Amino acid sequence: MVTISEQAGILTVINVFTLEPEQQERLVDFLVENKEIPMRQPGFISANLHTSLDGTRVVNYIQWRSREALEAASKNPDFIAMAKQAAEFAPHDFHVYKVASTMEV
Amino acid sequence: MVTISEQAGILTVINVFTLEPEQQERLVDFLVENKEIPMRQPGFISANLHTSLDGTRVVNYIQWRSREALEAASKNPDFIAMAKQAAEFAPHDFHVYKVASTMEV
Repeated sequence: MVTISEQAGILTVINVFTLEPEQQERLVDFLVENKEIPMRQPGFISANLHTSLDGTRVVNYIQWRSREALEAASKNPDFIAMAKQAAEFAPHDFHVYKVASTMEV
Repeated sequence: MVTISEQAGILTVINVFTLEPEQQERLVDFLVENKEIPMRQPGFISANLHTSLDGTRVVNYIQWRSREALEAASKNPDFIAMAKQAAEFAPHDFHVYKVASTMEV
């Protein structure tokens, strides 16, 4: 089960793709078909694909154990090739985050 | 505990604020100080504030029970006023999503 919490020890990457609606499903299919590549990188926890109902965004919400794990993955040739292919689908806004606050009823 | 899953019955809103680093903490403080406003709307589940390590983004990852709940909240005067004030901090990219796929090791 994927959880969001303020606990230390999780690095969150949020990658927002802006695309034409006809590309949305293709990008999701590409990322799902190649999911073994991130999943076999040490320190990878989860990737969670979100599709906007208007068709114009795909958000990948990704959790890593640490910045070191992300940096190591970023040097893996398969991982680099996959990220490059994904980037060819659409412009994307990639940032590294911490969870600052959670509010739950 | 906030969880991400493909289960039906959750509508996800992802709101990405692009801002100057000196504004990042102020926006988070504003949203935390006013958290009672979304939390008392029927159908609100959770809001999860993420701050980019480079200072230039705040991502609010919000869960609602349904689209109807979000639409009802969007007509609440306190909620409207808060959203308007938040929008004055910075340009933001607001979309409504479903969870298309989760991959977890």
